[in-house]
Amino acid sequence: MISEKMIKMAEGGSAIRAMFEEGNRLSQKYGRENVYDFSIGNPNIPAPEKIREEIISIAENTDPMELHGYMSNAGYPFVRSAVAESLNRRFGTNFTGENIIMTVGAAGGLNIVLKTLLNPGDEVLVFSPYFLEYGNYVSNYDGVLKAVPASETDGFQPDAAALYSAVNEKTKAVIINNPNNPTGVIYSEEKIKELAAALEKRQAELGTSIYIISDEPYRELAYDGAEVPYITKYYKNTIVCYSWSKSLSLPGERIGYVVIPNDADDSALIVSAAVIANRILGFVNAPALQQRMVAACLDEKTDVGAYDRNRQTLYNGLKSAGFEPVYPSGAFYMWVKAPDGDDKAFSQRAKKYNILFVPGSSFACPGYVRIAYCVSHDMIVRSLPAFKKLGEEYGL
Amino acid sequence: MISEKMIKMAEGGSAIRAMFEEGNRLSQKYGRENVYDFSIGNPNIPAPEKIREEIISIAENTDPMELHGYMSNAGYPFVRSAVAESLNRRFGTNFTGENIIMTVGAAGGLNIVLKTLLNPGDEVLVFSPYFLEYGNYVSNYDGVLKAVPASETDGFQPDAAALYSAVNEKTKAVIINNPNNPTGVIYSEEKIKELAAALEKRQAELGTSIYIISDEPYRELAYDGAEVPYITKYYKNTIVCYSWSKSLSLPGERIGYVVIPNDADDSALIVSAAVIANRILGFVNAPALQQRMVAACLDEKTDVGAYDRNRQTLYNGLKSAGFEPVYPSGAFYMWVKAPDGDDKAFSQRAKKYNILFVPGSSFACPGYVRIAYCVSHDMIVRSLPAFKKLGEEYGL
Repeated sequence: MISEKMIKMAEGGSAIRAMFEEGNRLSQKYGRENVYDFSIGNPNIPAPEKIREEIISIAENTDPMELHGYMSNAGYPFVRSAVAESLNRRFGTNFTGENIIMTVGAAGGLNIVLKTLLNPGDEVLVFSPYFLEYGNYVSNYDGVLKAVPASETDGFQPDAAALYSAVNEKTKAVIINNPNNPTGVIYSEEKIKELAAALEKRQAELGTSIYIISDEPYRELAYDGAEVPYITKYYKNTIVCYSWSKSLSLPGERIGYVVIPNDADDSALIVSAAVIANRILGFVNAPALQQRMVAACLDEKTDVGAYDRNRQTLYNGLKSAGFEPVYPSGAFYMWVKAPDGDDKAFSQRAKKYNILFVPGSSFACPGYVRIAYCVSHDMIVRSLPAFKKLGEEYGL
Repeated sequence: MISEKMIKMAEGGSAIRAMFEEGNRLSQKYGRENVYDFSIGNPNIPAPEKIREEIISIAENTDPMELHGYMSNAGYPFVRSAVAESLNRRFGTNFTGENIIMTVGAAGGLNIVLKTLLNPGDEVLVFSPYFLEYGNYVSNYDGVLKAVPASETDGFQPDAAALYSAVNEKTKAVIINNPNNPTGVIYSEEKIKELAAALEKRQAELGTSIYIISDEPYRELAYDGAEVPYITKYYKNTIVCYSWSKSLSLPGERIGYVVIPNDADDSALIVSAAVIANRILGFVNAPALQQRMVAACLDEKTDVGAYDRNRQTLYNGLKSAGFEPVYPSGAFYMWVKAPDGDDKAFSQRAKKYNILFVPGSSFACPGYVRIAYCVSHDMIVRSLPAFKKLGEEYGL
């Protein structure tokens, strides 16, 4: 018998990925232009042209031994330093290359951090709704994920009082995701300060270290001039997991980094252990060519304006069809109330109109659905009459 | 307290990596040309020119959305098919793309396979000497690695009778590494047949499935016309983990694949679970650009002749200095007896002559050392007088 844990997962599958396959099936049947697939967070803005130029230039001008050879498991020192300096310029932090570990995306980063932190039975808190994959990452290291509901009445901002109550002596970490998948909410500076105060208080009471693991692939996707607070400045036991998947539209390339600040408890030990975790989990190091590429593209930006335009069109369209979306301030997701509260039925009914989105149950939060608007603006415009009909079916 | 397992590892470190750092330290002190660093398996033959050309061509000619976007967690279907067809042409196998999962190198492949197969307490056998990292990979999934000595009297070929005796009802897998790191031995077809027969017999007796996990990054590095048997043809419960790290000199890029044949017990379930493991361990998928690149370079070869020349020069030099190396038929490692049986003291003494190699204790096999000859031929020639002096110190 193979791993029992894995058999269960193989039978369960991923709801989001299943939706992705469903989209392909519908597209083959009805034609891609007649299917409105809002199910997956695959950026639809092409990577900036400089990405292409740098890849070519690196391939042309770098000795292949240097380009493709092994380096330290933490990544190239010059890349780590460049990342640290870029963060310092942008956020007034004080990192050096020693605080940075280059990783195979944020998913790789989260795994090495959790492997480094967790003893079996340790608890990790997360605000729901949340990206269910966190549960798998925590379970990989025999930790226990516990969800604390975000505040529905406060636009899905995190609830510091609820967090405070959920922390116990087994709590090793809190994963936050800001801007948030699936709600599109940006946690305000005020809320971050509240979270930090609650955790500081609880750490002092319990005499333990509780780490915030801040998963930030959507950091650069913020609208209306919103600031996304840099969490290490508010709470010293913060570890940041970053990825260029969304910010530079490179999700297939698996390139990101982890920040472990000097101020964090056991900082040096965590850095050493996380570098070893990077090696023994089989990542070994972040892909070499892409490390060099991102170091040359740290100031590149995706076209946030295009996502913003999608956001406005979809939000207004859904409102005028009678739906109740949460107005998103970041990421490329819209969180919409299921008209009769049944998110799964809502997602099923939408398929009749060739509209695909993901029920909130897949984010541990029934009653809502996630609509990913990282799609062509044209598709959004074409989908609105279908949404209108869907709303009419609900008597909206 | 962070993970106790990881704290121990952070304190232990990797002997091979420590040697690598030592090499850098000595180089700074004495000049790189006066240090003979044989410690690490970093290929010194540049990647074939076609790698560069393909990377440039892919970057120039592929739409960035297609090039850098998400794909199935198993990899691009066209890449998986191309790999299967290439294997079928070379080895007379009968794979399709469905049997192939693209991975973040062989280390990533081994991790997803072990996560897929192991329940806590399951045993994994390996022939010693072996790459100690296997112990970490197995331990990641709460398995127990047990070493079976290879036959020293039979030139470190695997010992089927010893394997048979070591298998019990908890044995889930046997990792073999062919050509072998650290011995440079190629397991002969006869030995593979003996291993297969022993495992078939034991499976029948116990009523269990026992998988061979064949770790094959050195497959293309075979000398004197030696054939490296393709294990799936001899034993149906075989899973192959491959990497282009050594065969195309791309260790920093982390690109490889896993083969799960239809004939293996629970094949379809293992494929599904391994694809999920690829996702939830945080690999998500093998790096996108490098997948496309290798698909275009499946017939490329590294310059095995250059390694062969190194092999001859080093072997003859060591022999004439009085040492006793095992004549290697594959990979780029030479396995050499410590003159007085103390491999750690031998490695220490060698440092006096600025020679760096790894004690066999780091491969669970004291009494020998590993000399990695993936270095410049010139360095080997320059090192021989130093080896001569080292031999004289032992009275050779």
